[in-house]
Amino acid sequence: MSKGITKRSEDYSAWYNELVKKADLAENSDVRGCMVIKPYGFAIWEKMQAEIDRMFKATGHSNAYFPLFIPKSYLSKEADHVEGFAKECAVVTHYRLKNAEDGSGVVVDPDAKLEEELIVRPTSETVIWSSYKKWIQSYRDLPILLNQWANVVRWEMRTRIFLRTSEFLWQEGHTAHATKEEAEAETIQMMNVYAEFAENFMAVPVIKGIKSESERFAGADETYCIEALMQDGKALQAGTSHFLGQNFAKAFDVKFLNKENKEELVWGTSWGVSTRLMGALIMAHSDDHGLVLPPKLAPIQVVIVPIYKGDEQFAAVSAKANEIKKALEAVGVSVKYDNRDTYKPGFKFADWEMKGVPVRLALGARDLENGTVEMARRDVVDPNNRNAGKKVVNFDEVVAEVQATLEDMQQGIYKKALDFRTEKTTKVDTYEEFKQVLDEKGGFVLAHWDGTADTEDKIKNETKATIRCIPLDDEAETGQCIYSGQPSARRVLFARAY
Amino acid sequence: MSKGITKRSEDYSAWYNELVKKADLAENSDVRGCMVIKPYGFAIWEKMQAEIDRMFKATGHSNAYFPLFIPKSYLSKEADHVEGFAKECAVVTHYRLKNAEDGSGVVVDPDAKLEEELIVRPTSETVIWSSYKKWIQSYRDLPILLNQWANVVRWEMRTRIFLRTSEFLWQEGHTAHATKEEAEAETIQMMNVYAEFAENFMAVPVIKGIKSESERFAGADETYCIEALMQDGKALQAGTSHFLGQNFAKAFDVKFLNKENKEELVWGTSWGVSTRLMGALIMAHSDDHGLVLPPKLAPIQVVIVPIYKGDEQFAAVSAKANEIKKALEAVGVSVKYDNRDTYKPGFKFADWEMKGVPVRLALGARDLENGTVEMARRDVVDPNNRNAGKKVVNFDEVVAEVQATLEDMQQGIYKKALDFRTEKTTKVDTYEEFKQVLDEKGGFVLAHWDGTADTEDKIKNETKATIRCIPLDDEAETGQCIYSGQPSARRVLFARAY
Ligand SMILES: [Zn+2]
Ligand SMILES: [Zn+2]
Repeated sequence: MSKGITKRSEDYSAWYNELVKKADLAENSDVRGCMVIKPYGFAIWEKMQAEIDRMFKATGHSNAYFPLFIPKSYLSKEADHVEGFAKECAVVTHYRLKNAEDGSGVVVDPDAKLEEELIVRPTSETVIWSSYKKWIQSYRDLPILLNQWANVVRWEMRTRIFLRTSEFLWQEGHTAHATKEEAEAETIQMMNVYAEFAENFMAVPVIKGIKSESERFAGADETYCIEALMQDGKALQAGTSHFLGQNFAKAFDVKFLNKENKEELVWGTSWGVSTRLMGALIMAHSDDHGLVLPPKLAPIQVVIVPIYKGDEQFAAVSAKANEIKKALEAVGVSVKYDNRDTYKPGFKFADWEMKGVPVRLALGARDLENGTVEMARRDVVDPNNRNAGKKVVNFDEVVAEVQATLEDMQQGIYKKALDFRTEKTTKVDTYEEFKQVLDEKGGFVLAHWDGTADTEDKIKNETKATIRCIPLDDEAETGQCIYSGQPSARRVLFARAY
Repeated sequence: MSKGITKRSEDYSAWYNELVKKADLAENSDVRGCMVIKPYGFAIWEKMQAEIDRMFKATGHSNAYFPLFIPKSYLSKEADHVEGFAKECAVVTHYRLKNAEDGSGVVVDPDAKLEEELIVRPTSETVIWSSYKKWIQSYRDLPILLNQWANVVRWEMRTRIFLRTSEFLWQEGHTAHATKEEAEAETIQMMNVYAEFAENFMAVPVIKGIKSESERFAGADETYCIEALMQDGKALQAGTSHFLGQNFAKAFDVKFLNKENKEELVWGTSWGVSTRLMGALIMAHSDDHGLVLPPKLAPIQVVIVPIYKGDEQFAAVSAKANEIKKALEAVGVSVKYDNRDTYKPGFKFADWEMKGVPVRLALGARDLENGTVEMARRDVVDPNNRNAGKKVVNFDEVVAEVQATLEDMQQGIYKKALDFRTEKTTKVDTYEEFKQVLDEKGGFVLAHWDGTADTEDKIKNETKATIRCIPLDDEAETGQCIYSGQPSARRVLFARAY
């Protein structure tokens, strides 16, 4: 914890990996591609989960739980779906081990071979729609508005903690509706829920849009998404919401009797966000000193560090520290009093800075005499000015000052990220300019595209930039495709992406 | 929903299965042994989780997340552990599917065979202690007090929803300590946390005790447990807490430098409760009309059913119903106003009775005139007396009456379960009597045992009764083993069990 981390400007990727490790967020396990989420990292995920779950329930959804395993034959039922997911899945073939005959340990028992292999869920549309077939008979059974919090597995060759892991945690919403209009409205509603969470809680501005056909979820008629921009100028897809049409209803034969007693196919949606959001949160705000967290998602919002010599000073400082802690907790602020006697204040300052605690209060014997405490805010750190972000606060103003500072930080880091994105969003009209911006400036590039998968593919192969989305909020503007010169109805959002 | 369920006295097992289905709690999936937990069942589990999680945090624990997959070789590192868990596990051998050459769907790609097979975790000691090896160097790194909420898989041949399923949800606590005393205290603390949860929230009285050696967790030096009694006279183990000694520290070479700078092995504990608690909750309290829930764990504590003819009455009744709902919610009571126009009141009454909603308020046009509402409590249902458990309550007393009734029910169903257990606990001094009580009365049987696994085994084979535990709270009383006649230091608790 004592040593710093690589600077973003030197090696962004090394900076990220070192930060994840030094802030005690997560680490790789011995199983390739599977991560261990450490307690501090998990506490941030829990804060995110709690808020997202509250938003789901406020929009009428309930949680449920479906099996981890999917029979192999289920995957094949929806043609596009199996193409998308069969390539990278964990396959269970046996259900027992036995002692090796040579005494070397345990081996797979060949007598315990499954008749049909089971796939560890990469996503649960197939298993859930096979349940919906049993649950849905009449229009009275609709809509079904479910979500599940679960682990899923997609076998990945190149992995990166939080951003791309073989096992990850996520929520997956799965809804069933009587009409197309209702399913479409649900799809858009959930995209908006994700955008609201990203902006108001993660303090990450996002662009809402529709995926091009080639980037669509395997089995969906339309994929909506929110796209965020990281500090290295690369985009990150932060959430997706899929309008499934009647595809899974057809694949699993899910029909209902409408009010006129006629049989119809059910309409579906699915939508998800994952522990990938942890990667977005880290990369959007953090600096060369470590993690920077929006106060609304910080497990510890305020840390109090005592400065003392000897037991007597420690007792006096602790009494006041605990009093301040109580007063802050009474107004809903989460506080840690770091009274460890095994570490010195300087170490603690660096440790909590690395972990992104928004506000630090330092309290010593001198402060007790003065009736003040030294407050430092995490979002203002200047290596050339030791006093940047610091402020001396009277005891009777601590609660109000802390509350105001937390609020100011939440707004401040959002605004900083938004200004960054604005600066890093470029409109280009030629392919030369397109490539130049990608190489020299990075960020989002708004350009005209002829709407064909062929052009999209060529641009991707030549520049590594993909269409992040067709933005929903931009006004239409006709033009010519930067690649083919063919007519285009609107600009789309390109970027190199995670 | 309209039809009833089999009576407990006719076929307890059928009663349980039908109740689980009709109360919309869960159902079997197409993957054998794996269940689907439906939204209403999951809402109960969420209430349990929230309370248990709060208790863990209040005792200093944090949540984390470890990989789903365990390398096969890890399992073998602790000799007893592998014996206990290798026999019933799901084994991942491949990481990809491919299209079948005959176009018949997808098949396992033989080129994608894993070098080392992965086991879907049956429990996570091995993967967690391999992390602890990296995390622990010094006494300053101890204790580690972690918990994880996760799914686990144990391949079961005979399964029963909630009680024994191949996949289940649970929490598993895993702690590491510098001293034996501290680890033992933690083990006992967590058993007490489980007992407190079972009694104060589930309203299920439990007996705390120690497992005999043959019933111990594979890899533990001592297993503490809480044992509950179901209405059919069978016991159910509701939670276990294991003192692991230094077994996993030895297996994974986890040592620390103590304050004197000497190397020592770390001490460990692990403890867990699972969705099995759902089975215990259902079987402890429910009746021939359906589920009976302790108010503290009921997702819906009060349901309001409107009785009306025509839109005008419906509007008037709804206005008052929503007013009552708001007033109850303001004091923290969860309320559902069942305003579905697709079902009649009689159907709704039976539906919510089946689902175990503690208090039902029926509100009609006549009630509006009288300024009253009809209140019915779920724990008092008498098929011979339509008015049993019913009460007419003035509008201005509804909130206080509901609160008092919920409190009274929480106490009342606990007392009922406790009285039942007291009546069904028998001290016996001969093997004849032992067998007679098991066959004719059931329940817990307190008897002397000579302490040998041989005797325990013979009794189990001859009577299907197992030693549930050596109770901690009973006074010692010497005697003679009912089977062998050898001396015994204390009675132990026998029962036939789930
Ligand atoms: Zn997009
Ligand atoms: Zn026991």
